[in-house]
Amino acid sequence: MKPKLEDVAKLAGVSKTTASRVLNNRGYLSEKTLKKVHDAMEQLNYQPNAAARQLFKQKTGLIGLIFPTVSNPFFGELVDYLEYELYQRQFKVIIGNSLQDISKETDYLNQLLAGQVDGLIVGTHNQGIAEYKYSHLPVVAIDRVMNSDIPIVESDNYNGGVLATERLIKSGVKQIIHTNGPVDLETPANRRRLAYEKVMQDHGLPHNTFTVDFRLSYNEKKEQYNKLFDLYPNVEAIFASNDVDAKIIMTIAEERGKKIPDNLLVVGYDGTELMRNIVPELTTVIQPIEEMAKTAVDVLIKRISGVQTEPEYILPVTLWDGRTGIK
Amino acid sequence: MKPKLEDVAKLAGVSKTTASRVLNNRGYLSEKTLKKVHDAMEQLNYQPNAAARQLFKQKTGLIGLIFPTVSNPFFGELVDYLEYELYQRQFKVIIGNSLQDISKETDYLNQLLAGQVDGLIVGTHNQGIAEYKYSHLPVVAIDRVMNSDIPIVESDNYNGGVLATERLIKSGVKQIIHTNGPVDLETPANRRRLAYEKVMQDHGLPHNTFTVDFRLSYNEKKEQYNKLFDLYPNVEAIFASNDVDAKIIMTIAEERGKKIPDNLLVVGYDGTELMRNIVPELTTVIQPIEEMAKTAVDVLIKRISGVQTEPEYILPVTLWDGRTGIK
Repeated sequence: MKPKLEDVAKLAGVSKTTASRVLNNRGYLSEKTLKKVHDAMEQLNYQPNAAARQLFKQKTGLIGLIFPTVSNPFFGELVDYLEYELYQRQFKVIIGNSLQDISKETDYLNQLLAGQVDGLIVGTHNQGIAEYKYSHLPVVAIDRVMNSDIPIVESDNYNGGVLATERLIKSGVKQIIHTNGPVDLETPANRRRLAYEKVMQDHGLPHNTFTVDFRLSYNEKKEQYNKLFDLYPNVEAIFASNDVDAKIIMTIAEERGKKIPDNLLVVGYDGTELMRNIVPELTTVIQPIEEMAKTAVDVLIKRISGVQTEPEYILPVTLWDGRTGIK
Repeated sequence: MKPKLEDVAKLAGVSKTTASRVLNNRGYLSEKTLKKVHDAMEQLNYQPNAAARQLFKQKTGLIGLIFPTVSNPFFGELVDYLEYELYQRQFKVIIGNSLQDISKETDYLNQLLAGQVDGLIVGTHNQGIAEYKYSHLPVVAIDRVMNSDIPIVESDNYNGGVLATERLIKSGVKQIIHTNGPVDLETPANRRRLAYEKVMQDHGLPHNTFTVDFRLSYNEKKEQYNKLFDLYPNVEAIFASNDVDAKIIMTIAEERGKKIPDNLLVVGYDGTELMRNIVPELTTVIQPIEEMAKTAVDVLIKRISGVQTEPEYILPVTLWDGRTGIK
């Protein structure tokens, strides 16, 4: 049987009203009371149900979502699922697209932090925004290291890197290049690169990461990937940082007379529903976008309700086996 | 020189304060005064500038965007541009994805209409939602007929249909099928079908529209398109309702041994930046998404400010000439 708020109150040795006030973060509560109730919630693995949530007085009924751009299939599907999950819990969403604009993100943050939303879910690529550090608003990050107090929801980037690299090595290719964003961006996605380097080393193969900034325009990216083929004419396989870039790389390779998979293997990353349906031949690592959204919303609601959360939630990835990853 | 609010006031024979009150929809104003000022604004083609806009007292600073789903490239890019344009004018956006859920859309509407936003931009596929009719909130529709009082921003669907159909006919093919959503949905996109039928008739060719509901899942769509090839094994060309479906059709055709463009020509629709970059070979009709977003925001701001608007804004389309549309 699922534990009720009464059970939490009993274990914590407080009244149900006090337990509810802790859950709903309402009124003055001593550190001691907070700790007792939070400990009881954790011990019982208490999940606030619909009735308990109804007790929670939403200040605005709004959650802010700050992501680079919904025009990218990964973020489009992620925001779609987040909106759906939040709607189920009576929240509506404000979106802010932060791509390439640190001042816009800061501006959004300042406005949203000024009481316009009850919480934030963020997954941006801008660096060094101090406002997150000083915010008392509940925040959850997706695939992004903000600060030690903000929980991160992510897919298993390390295993994703292992799956992709091992898939390529299986075909006997040796010159495998990994493309990825700048390493100074603090994101768990950097673990894909670490996994790639480790697997290559374990097989006695040279590793080589080609850096392409996520924020470049399509034309700038094409220039970069053309440069990749100029610099490494003998490349046999590419493990790309995302499926859109993987498809662009495939087109450029074909323009340069390389047949896929005969002359070049390609593995992507993300595995959105869109890309799996319109480029089903592309081998890729599927991030569990729907589960990531559900988890992020669960964790955020817990934060809003004052329930303790873990620092990191890692969800499993799977390999989508297309024709481009094997020969 | 651009007309100023003073010029509007002078022409209307009212004080600048009165003109500003009309612009900002503030306080009681007689029908006669409203008409005089609106007529003067229209006659001078007056565009409220930043200073005049600052006078406008935003009630919420929020605009609601209701579209089927941001996980679709067209709506993803459209919402991206809308968010950008609205941010430039100090508005933040609440998004509601309405795909396949008429009760969710109605629920959103009721909540948003209850003073949570200053205006709405909508482009959903749900039918018969009465709330739009009784709303006093400024609303602008994109590619969707709501009611006679709600202005529509759209691309030139008729010319898009002409461009696509003529492109296919040029290669001498005769069995050209058009795929489209249900005809009972009141959207200007139906004009693509009318154009296709007219052009086919003008060339003495039979027209044949295959109906596939936009809201089907990917698997259901694949089933439908397989059925299309079962029913019409001799089809020589397909003018698809959007690029995602066009790419799915291409994959199914290739699975069935049809080479593109040798055995089958395909033309899509929408021409998003994403699809032009990852499937550059697909011939398509480019909708001017950025201009559509800019226009919708301009028109909405005018509505909020009480400035008269046109019932319909039609923006030009262009043809993206890929390898799939010609042989």
